[in-house]
Amino acid sequence: MENSNSSIEGNNLRVRKLELSDKSKGFLELLRQLTVCDSVSDKEFEDRFKEISMYGDDHVICVIEDEISGKIIASGSVFIEKKFIRKCGKVGHIEDVVVDAGSRGMQLGKKIVGFLADHARSMGCYKVILDCSDENKVFYEKCGFKKKEIQMVNYFV
Amino acid sequence: MENSNSSIEGNNLRVRKLELSDKSKGFLELLRQLTVCDSVSDKEFEDRFKEISMYGDDHVICVIEDEISGKIIASGSVFIEKKFIRKCGKVGHIEDVVVDAGSRGMQLGKKIVGFLADHARSMGCYKVILDCSDENKVFYEKCGFKKKEIQMVNYFV
Repeated sequence: MENSNSSIEGNNLRVRKLELSDKSKGFLELLRQLTVCDSVSDKEFEDRFKEISMYGDDHVICVIEDEISGKIIASGSVFIEKKFIRKCGKVGHIEDVVVDAGSRGMQLGKKIVGFLADHARSMGCYKVILDCSDENKVFYEKCGFKKKEIQMVNYFV
Repeated sequence: MENSNSSIEGNNLRVRKLELSDKSKGFLELLRQLTVCDSVSDKEFEDRFKEISMYGDDHVICVIEDEISGKIIASGSVFIEKKFIRKCGKVGHIEDVVVDAGSRGMQLGKKIVGFLADHARSMGCYKVILDCSDENKVFYEKCGFKKKEIQMVNYFV
């Protein structure tokens, strides 16, 4: 029996880096499934894209595109923090992992997290970390993570 | 009655940015009170210092120096992550906050965290976050933070 995702199961669902043109492929609409993500102008998007690109491999945003619909259906980011501890070690910070609600059950989240963790490892990080809700703990355990500390936040707005 | 910290209570215990010369003022020995922090050569320290300095205000490490002993007695860092969510918002990530064991009780940790949070706010961040142990939760609550999520980690080494 076919399921609702059959049309994209045949896709080459590869993870690639974010491109400027992904704004018109629903990238911001996808992020909106994660948290507040107001619309921005093409100029604002391009400026932010360029700012992040300046960090090169130290800040990577990746996506999965459904090549049939032309929509971005999964995304995540990682940035590399340079430290003095651990013999001038580096740590990868994973942020903003999201999979489109209509594209669940295809291990896309695991693909995204794997891509980001592999990138951090290839950059020489001794660990990769992320913050998540209690509900997402099991998912990240399946990705090779384990619970360590607690996240504290101070909102300015 | 004088206490053991009387010699530095008269100091101007201001928070300032890390300087290259702080390596010889016990900066790495202080970090060693936080976690594993092997010795590095002057060249390795300088290279990492320059790498971080390239980020300018996007990655700031601050310290408090005891001007009488000439030792670094507190430190912390913050880096600014640029996002697409929240109308191309920014988030400050606080890391590696440490106060010398012999210099506790003088609110130095609060000064460090306040400096880093103020920096994040001045950079336009909508929030500042950090990960800590359960034992340090109360300290960060006094600094204006509240618990939100859990931290997950994947160690490569």
